[in-house]
Amino acid sequence: MLATILHKPGDIRCEEIADPKIMRPTDAIIKLSASCICGSDLWPYRGLQPVEAPMHMGHEYCGIVVEVGAEVRTVRPGQFVVGSFCLSDNTCPHCRFGFQSSCVQREFMSGAQAPYARVPLADGTLVATAEVPPAELVPDLLAVSDVLGTGWYAAEAAEVREGLTVVVVGDGAVGLMGVLAAKEMGAGRIIAMSRHESRQQLAREFGATDIVAERGEEGIARIKDLTRDIGADSVLECVGTAESFDQALACSRPGGTIGYVGVPHGVSFDGQKLFFGQKRMLGGPAPVRRFLPDLMERVLKGRIKPGKVFDLKLPLAEVAEGYRAMDERRAIKVLLSV
Amino acid sequence: MLATILHKPGDIRCEEIADPKIMRPTDAIIKLSASCICGSDLWPYRGLQPVEAPMHMGHEYCGIVVEVGAEVRTVRPGQFVVGSFCLSDNTCPHCRFGFQSSCVQREFMSGAQAPYARVPLADGTLVATAEVPPAELVPDLLAVSDVLGTGWYAAEAAEVREGLTVVVVGDGAVGLMGVLAAKEMGAGRIIAMSRHESRQQLAREFGATDIVAERGEEGIARIKDLTRDIGADSVLECVGTAESFDQALACSRPGGTIGYVGVPHGVSFDGQKLFFGQKRMLGGPAPVRRFLPDLMERVLKGRIKPGKVFDLKLPLAEVAEGYRAMDERRAIKVLLSV
Repeated sequence: MLATILHKPGDIRCEEIADPKIMRPTDAIIKLSASCICGSDLWPYRGLQPVEAPMHMGHEYCGIVVEVGAEVRTVRPGQFVVGSFCLSDNTCPHCRFGFQSSCVQREFMSGAQAPYARVPLADGTLVATAEVPPAELVPDLLAVSDVLGTGWYAAEAAEVREGLTVVVVGDGAVGLMGVLAAKEMGAGRIIAMSRHESRQQLAREFGATDIVAERGEEGIARIKDLTRDIGADSVLECVGTAESFDQALACSRPGGTIGYVGVPHGVSFDGQKLFFGQKRMLGGPAPVRRFLPDLMERVLKGRIKPGKVFDLKLPLAEVAEGYRAMDERRAIKVLLSV
Repeated sequence: MLATILHKPGDIRCEEIADPKIMRPTDAIIKLSASCICGSDLWPYRGLQPVEAPMHMGHEYCGIVVEVGAEVRTVRPGQFVVGSFCLSDNTCPHCRFGFQSSCVQREFMSGAQAPYARVPLADGTLVATAEVPPAELVPDLLAVSDVLGTGWYAAEAAEVREGLTVVVVGDGAVGLMGVLAAKEMGAGRIIAMSRHESRQQLAREFGATDIVAERGEEGIARIKDLTRDIGADSVLECVGTAESFDQALACSRPGGTIGYVGVPHGVSFDGQKLFFGQKRMLGGPAPVRRFLPDLMERVLKGRIKPGKVFDLKLPLAEVAEGYRAMDERRAIKVLLSV
């Protein structure tokens, strides 16, 4: 089959590789209904994360089960499934605690920018729908796999509740999903920090009540203005740079909460500054598996349309153009037909 | 009056100074019923925090109001009061949110290792009892002012709940109060990390179910053993060093919570390590004012005896010996009769 391989930073290719096959009795093989490119794929693409060997790219997926290993019990061929980018057994103490992204057997999904993929730990990882959903819902269901699940976790970790004031730092796909999540959780005010008009518009569609285009000191001053000098109750950090963390810390009120889902790159925190800032913080890879049933149901009922975040659709063969478009911020998120 | 002045690291003296007087209409003057030395007083005493001018030491206090400024409404001369080491107006948005230690008018108390002290922001800071309590409760009520309030906040910030497994890092007075707080909050298991027999014994009295004497990698391994490789639900960090934070982070389960109240000295956190560790964290100066009414009532009803943490009693004139005893860890916490 044709699949996406990153050979070295900037060198992404769609090339012929062997079809995936069952390697362990807990594996499943799925035929993807669609695939996509993640903001985190850009870290190695940009050389900000080492590429030691050719990498099989893609960790967001949904599709039809075509084969299962001998020990798989909860999904069967023919079913439509969505899984998390974090593979988990869903039975260990961390999974049962709701932190499947720290499962004792955790692996990260790979190789999903392709027509077929192997999903290890299929029983713990995959959630099947009752029926094969209509094609128009595929982008929405694909979004659940990572980008929505991650934005949702940011809002959960930031303890968004009915009526609270929320700031979302980052207008990438995850930040926009964070806006949607905060809206679903009943936030009273959702301030999206964004400088790009198309993203501002999408943020408003997803529920943002205010847009702040300024950054740095000016951005902080605008948030203070908007919150009567108090700061936000909840802040979603959806970037992962030192600047975005500074922004998040300065925008939240003392006793407020920051949920951070942008993988920190070159970020460190001074202990005393965190101490006196007095912000509650929780981050990490999102335990999407915890949210899958709920989020899939919201999509299937037509309550949310996270698939709107895909603003460029390309065939898999043009995946390199998809990476370029996201790298240059011409696209928010690229859907790949496979 | 005779009061305690730190001239330079190691040079602490009890010397004659002018009696405090009302300086602002929101001040009160109290006659202390007793005073004490705080673990945090040792930072400047040890030269780990700069001493730029002679410092009037002491920030834990309870006693009888002797005079109030023209604008003070909620306390009056003759009343017995307890206040927080953080002075706050208790009306600003941060105070109303329960984070009085980040009050927009916040000041830190000083000069309480003396017979009389000025308490700014008296209305917001002080809580009076209905009657003057019996003398034997004075050490318990004094403890509420900081050491118990801070240990309580550590347990609150660490989200201790009924039945949870709690680790307390640090067997200083605050750590021991953290044990007491966790017990009051219904923790199922309280593991105190302590190498000192007298402190271990007090920890057990306050509610510790297990003692771990090991530190570093061995300490972490013992906690893993005791928690079936899961880690603790809640960890109270009551020291403030890089080693103690490493311990706290390694002892808590993914998705678990760390409450940190030891002022970090020379501590920084790597963003990516925090991210993948996936621990919820909240620290800062304790908003003791939030807890005062509840904790005072627990003391007055005889439900808790936090004053047991004072294992050395000295007259104020011997305050220098008190600092030495705490510095050399011969005493857990020193009560000063004034």
